[in-house]
Amino acid sequence: VIDRPTCLARDLADPLARFRPLFHHPPDLIYLEGNSLGMMPKAVPARLDALVSREWADGLIRSWNDAGWWDMPLRIGAKIARLIGAHPDEVAATDSTSVNLFKLLAAATQLRPGRRVILTDPDNFPTDLYIADGLVNLLPGYELRLRPVTEIAASLDETIAVVTLSHVDYKTAAIHDMPAITRAAHAAGALALWDLSHSAGAVSVGLAAAGADLAVGCGYKYLNGGPGAPAYLYVRRDHQEKIRAPISGWWGHAEPFAFLPRYAPAPGIARMLCGTQSPLAMAALDTALDLWADVDLALLDVKRAALTDLFITLVERDCPDLRLASPRDPAARASHVSFRHEDGYAVMQALRAAGVIGDFRSPDLLRFGFTPLYIGYVDVFDAATRLALVMREEGYRRAEFRRPARVT
Amino acid sequence: VIDRPTCLARDLADPLARFRPLFHHPPDLIYLEGNSLGMMPKAVPARLDALVSREWADGLIRSWNDAGWWDMPLRIGAKIARLIGAHPDEVAATDSTSVNLFKLLAAATQLRPGRRVILTDPDNFPTDLYIADGLVNLLPGYELRLRPVTEIAASLDETIAVVTLSHVDYKTAAIHDMPAITRAAHAAGALALWDLSHSAGAVSVGLAAAGADLAVGCGYKYLNGGPGAPAYLYVRRDHQEKIRAPISGWWGHAEPFAFLPRYAPAPGIARMLCGTQSPLAMAALDTALDLWADVDLALLDVKRAALTDLFITLVERDCPDLRLASPRDPAARASHVSFRHEDGYAVMQALRAAGVIGDFRSPDLLRFGFTPLYIGYVDVFDAATRLALVMREEGYRRAEFRRPARVT
Repeated sequence: VIDRPTCLARDLADPLARFRPLFHHPPDLIYLEGNSLGMMPKAVPARLDALVSREWADGLIRSWNDAGWWDMPLRIGAKIARLIGAHPDEVAATDSTSVNLFKLLAAATQLRPGRRVILTDPDNFPTDLYIADGLVNLLPGYELRLRPVTEIAASLDETIAVVTLSHVDYKTAAIHDMPAITRAAHAAGALALWDLSHSAGAVSVGLAAAGADLAVGCGYKYLNGGPGAPAYLYVRRDHQEKIRAPISGWWGHAEPFAFLPRYAPAPGIARMLCGTQSPLAMAALDTALDLWADVDLALLDVKRAALTDLFITLVERDCPDLRLASPRDPAARASHVSFRHEDGYAVMQALRAAGVIGDFRSPDLLRFGFTPLYIGYVDVFDAATRLALVMREEGYRRAEFRRPARVT
Repeated sequence: VIDRPTCLARDLADPLARFRPLFHHPPDLIYLEGNSLGMMPKAVPARLDALVSREWADGLIRSWNDAGWWDMPLRIGAKIARLIGAHPDEVAATDSTSVNLFKLLAAATQLRPGRRVILTDPDNFPTDLYIADGLVNLLPGYELRLRPVTEIAASLDETIAVVTLSHVDYKTAAIHDMPAITRAAHAAGALALWDLSHSAGAVSVGLAAAGADLAVGCGYKYLNGGPGAPAYLYVRRDHQEKIRAPISGWWGHAEPFAFLPRYAPAPGIARMLCGTQSPLAMAALDTALDLWADVDLALLDVKRAALTDLFITLVERDCPDLRLASPRDPAARASHVSFRHEDGYAVMQALRAAGVIGDFRSPDLLRFGFTPLYIGYVDVFDAATRLALVMREEGYRRAEFRRPARVT
């Protein structure tokens, strides 16, 4: 039998439980949307206040050196590297995921001249599809080819420059097989580019072990870097000296302060930097990443599987109208769980009114994110209990929860 | 005779003087580098603390709507529009200047198919040259052509897709003739793209009056939006429905929350948005821009000319070893003043030790920025006095101010 006391006992035995109080939890709220925007680490406000009221206000331009602003993208990149199984000199924090994806896709086409196809999955995260579409629109003769992820390996041939996929499906939470697909890409002479936005910080990621060529990811989901936090990019060491940054700004220049008229790429991953980054945004991410230094990453996989298993068990026991849309095998499932319901929009509105925040994705998907770092077993139990109440009383049928004509 | 009391009298009569106390001035420091990083408006820390400690911490994902985070790029863009003589729906705050320049140059080549040359000035801001170089490297058959700004008009022909120039030369502060060069570009069937980073907020800019097609600019210099503040881009109304964003991310989608598999551009300037922006960085810029709502922009030109004239007069009177590198005509000169000295690096180091911050640009250029919004006449007088002392006592020859092998 699963009840609240057994969940409480599991929290007490959880080796990751000590991270929960390091985040700000609003009272009477269960937050299951860390897969979209992570909670705020309590250390952030003081760090930002120091940056603004001391480093900017008093240090002014000198803080680019004196306060270490200039070095943030690579210093923070090295911290992220540990979370994604990369070497510290293979990652930079910079720009947005979309911009980074554009940079790496464009660079990939130049690393594989003569191959003119970008291969991806039609269920890839939409902005990843849009970015690839924008690039092939810009490059004459290039094509974006869409194949279901199960057919990607069989679709590889000598026309493919790069395969780009999300490590985790943003709708279902299915984990794609990074090592196998990367191997298949390499066997066909193509590069493999992974979007880690929905996996890093919740699922163990082994870029180096898989031999992945390129990757991008997002700072504001499971990394808890704050709204619109800087994203990151990864370039495998042996590609770094061959890669040409397509958006070649001064931050990627070998001598940025020499103000030379000709572009010359910086050595290593720094060449993928572009324009001036926001130390404010960087500092929030940096502070959030400091929490990760103490995290045993193997525990993430264990706890993620346990939290999501618990939620699925409780929802399937108490909410027969909800149909699981995520893989049932926890090894194949990342850190969120999705259920389908034809009135999904209204259900999520009603659940939010009951103090549980998840999200809704058209047309019928309810998503619940379980961040191993700050969500506990009692949170899962309470959220499932409130969801069951909403479903049983059909509170979601009230007019106030009805879907508007256009959702934004 | 120019002395401190006459300068004090001018401050007292200055209609812009009321803005000075709205910025944080570190004690015993005269800050003449607002052309690189503007000072901190005193209202910023409270705004950021509210954003972090309330909107992020408690509002969490809901704040994208409830706190207006989502709308920031266009709402802030509309505030910038007033400063650059654009319509409110022609500007968006987003990304970095370098990324925005890439986006608009790429879009310009698509607006002028068949024309394969980007024309610019070899003295354009280096990162602008690097970005254009990166784009032509990506697009087969394209060329970046460099001509001195005095020869730009004569270099226009039917091969030119777009002329891209900085409105103000970052070294000399020379203002380029936006209306005349834009007219010449149009007469040749080319587009004109202006970088306003060194003019907006210090020099009146009339994009619409000049008929400029495209523009980019920076939020952290004269706009005082904080280190690494979001940049902005401008697209003239009649180009907006024809333009295709080359980096086409979900923020520029017609229905970003429908998560449709195919890209469809948003109407208007919104289509030039790309990935998720940082509300933190946006909020600092937004707060800084609120100060501008009350500024009579015509006064900027008057005061900028007066401050820079005063500085030139004092330096030429008291520092005969410094040679003016900026235009003498204040109508041709933006808001910074440059002098040359063979020991320029050491002079600037010594001057900084004396409490005056300007900057140095290789090989021999001293730059002093005069931000009309927070620099007064007494500041100019005191800065010139300290500079004269440094020069007269040759304090800059001390070993501690010697230039290191590599300056960063």
